[in-house]
Amino acid sequence: MAADARLRTVDEQLEIVLAGLGSIDPIELTLLDAQGLLLAENVSTEVPLPGFDNSAMDGYAVRAVDTRDATPEHPVVLPVVGDVAAGATSRSGMGPGLTMRIMTGAPIPAGADGVIPLEDTDRGVAKVAIRRPVQSGECVRRAGEDLPAGAPALGAGAALGPQQLALLAAIGRDRVIVRPRPRVLVISTGSELIDVGHKPSFGEVTDSNSYLVTAAARDAGADARRIGIVPDDHSKLLDALESQLLRADVLVTTGGVSMGAFDIVKQALSELGTVEFTRIAMQPGKPQGFGHLGDRVPIFCLPGNPVSALVSFEAFVRPAIRKLLGKRNLQRATVQAVALERVDSPAGIRQYRRGVLHREATGGYSVSLVGGAGSHLIASMASSNCLVVIDEEVTEVVAGSRVTVIPLLLANR
Amino acid sequence: MAADARLRTVDEQLEIVLAGLGSIDPIELTLLDAQGLLLAENVSTEVPLPGFDNSAMDGYAVRAVDTRDATPEHPVVLPVVGDVAAGATSRSGMGPGLTMRIMTGAPIPAGADGVIPLEDTDRGVAKVAIRRPVQSGECVRRAGEDLPAGAPALGAGAALGPQQLALLAAIGRDRVIVRPRPRVLVISTGSELIDVGHKPSFGEVTDSNSYLVTAAARDAGADARRIGIVPDDHSKLLDALESQLLRADVLVTTGGVSMGAFDIVKQALSELGTVEFTRIAMQPGKPQGFGHLGDRVPIFCLPGNPVSALVSFEAFVRPAIRKLLGKRNLQRATVQAVALERVDSPAGIRQYRRGVLHREATGGYSVSLVGGAGSHLIASMASSNCLVVIDEEVTEVVAGSRVTVIPLLLANR
Repeated sequence: MAADARLRTVDEQLEIVLAGLGSIDPIELTLLDAQGLLLAENVSTEVPLPGFDNSAMDGYAVRAVDTRDATPEHPVVLPVVGDVAAGATSRSGMGPGLTMRIMTGAPIPAGADGVIPLEDTDRGVAKVAIRRPVQSGECVRRAGEDLPAGAPALGAGAALGPQQLALLAAIGRDRVIVRPRPRVLVISTGSELIDVGHKPSFGEVTDSNSYLVTAAARDAGADARRIGIVPDDHSKLLDALESQLLRADVLVTTGGVSMGAFDIVKQALSELGTVEFTRIAMQPGKPQGFGHLGDRVPIFCLPGNPVSALVSFEAFVRPAIRKLLGKRNLQRATVQAVALERVDSPAGIRQYRRGVLHREATGGYSVSLVGGAGSHLIASMASSNCLVVIDEEVTEVVAGSRVTVIPLLLANR
Repeated sequence: MAADARLRTVDEQLEIVLAGLGSIDPIELTLLDAQGLLLAENVSTEVPLPGFDNSAMDGYAVRAVDTRDATPEHPVVLPVVGDVAAGATSRSGMGPGLTMRIMTGAPIPAGADGVIPLEDTDRGVAKVAIRRPVQSGECVRRAGEDLPAGAPALGAGAALGPQQLALLAAIGRDRVIVRPRPRVLVISTGSELIDVGHKPSFGEVTDSNSYLVTAAARDAGADARRIGIVPDDHSKLLDALESQLLRADVLVTTGGVSMGAFDIVKQALSELGTVEFTRIAMQPGKPQGFGHLGDRVPIFCLPGNPVSALVSFEAFVRPAIRKLLGKRNLQRATVQAVALERVDSPAGIRQYRRGVLHREATGGYSVSLVGGAGSHLIASMASSNCLVVIDEEVTEVVAGSRVTVIPLLLANR
């Protein structure tokens, strides 16, 4: 690749990535396993909600007409001929001039057309004094008033949060067809890498990228798994990739995409599929690989520096995971913040700097930079809570001017 | 309880709830299991980051002084006496006037004090033409420049997102001590309830509250589990609660807190601990129970209507879960939105209405109401994406004025 070839823009690369994603077949999951996912079917209800006319209050079921003359001073006193509990499975009935004690949610007895709340009575047991007239239909929840039988409940594409899962449960569904979490497998490449829990010898580096990317992929909603470290060895990498291909919807490697003599990722990948290595007009993250293994599984080859890996993940992998999940908004929300210091940026390059976003007392945001431009600075990366984006056409941000910031908000789980 | 007793405010009840929470002992977890949790120890690094002086670029290690006179027209040509790969575990060395080819991340050989990037050379193998002078220290990442050995890496209370987990990995930690997810167990009470997947007979209602609350608790960050349905039977409820007590950090029941004759939750609970049943100045959600079982496990007894259960969860259980997680912000963020319709609200009551929040083209928010005041309306609850809060002292919100809205944003997972 010629050093002076025009670099591809971030937006162009993202377009290529998104166009290169297939879709993952929907799966059927139990309700609680479907939390956070998008529905992949149109769900209608067979049963009405509520399922039967029932009481909205604890009180007494009455015929409204029998209470017409009730006042606080001259209550209407009616005999109580029984109790209706929630969970009553046979329909009660009562004649004119009678009442039944009824719980919230219990079926309205045949013959009654309203409920007088306990508070408006003397709470009598054998007979009850009713202190005001009841309207026909008062405190009655009608069968089907929330959702009639046969009505659509939730459409394909609905995000399943607690309220939506509750509705699916209410209409009796125990399983639903959803778009699954993409299975993302993460590999760190590099002969210098050792795993956590071991003391590095001279020249060894503890692998952190696979933790970074696996956690970031989970945060984005993927079912991500860390495969671990593969040394810079052609056949070992080939074996690792081949053995994981069937279990993956997306593969991510870090390392091995620089221009050095020892890079072996490219060679191994060329035997398993078609992966394009590109230089992107971004900083950090210039060298990137994207393609497919076995003609099916998208693979991202991210740079090996942790900051480059994070920025590349945010720019390309996170939107891809969200697209596979079926989400409409692929990008994180951005905010405008006042830059607290000057930033220079090369023309034609989209620069991503790590920052600390502050909420101002006035309600706006300001942002300071941490960590300089060094993409190996992992401690300063860990102290940042946002990325500051300096667009391609901007070469200078003066202190006090506004910049675009991507807060790296965490999902709760 | 006298019907005219002063109601307790939402804020008073929340204060009682938060004061009634103990803390959960920190636990040690592997890095990826700790994602999203708060660190419960101060972590320092034993090793410096980077661990050794290494190259920031693919290029050639040089003595800067040897390149002093290099220009594009008259490059300095130096012999290449070897390669330094990333992963080299013995220190290379080179004499004056020599160079070694070096990969990004590879240790700087003894005798060299700078790196000339490939791009500024002819990429020679036996000898290399260097086209510009190299500064001493150029393209060298110094050992410890990110974090010196012995330095603090992350403090107790740090939230562990991808970047923080990457830092912990980079310094070699495989496990960390964190504040665990509270184990929340959820029970729906009611003899009318049946489980999903069965067709309800007359008078039966499919349990949705346990799904609602379990999902909401997971969304809040808890390790929540649905125990399921317990009928309105004193000894069955007692058995269910007793058998779960040791496995729970928090218990949540729904149903059984109304004033009807058949409530049995109160009785069963009084045998296992101290639970106070209160009427709160809120709508929905007026009847609430909170206390402790076995003097240790906090228990929330939420109303049985789904909307009441959701609102009560948001008002009391979610802040409690977040406090147990160690989070600083216990409350969800609120936004101000323009009300698209009039809302009336009783004086002295904090009303929560379900709404649909719209983002306006101008950047602000507007909100419309769904589902009316009926707290049994689960389908309309499922179509809402926020709660509209009408404070105690407000009795009327006219269309076009501003109201406080709690967006019910979902965690990704």
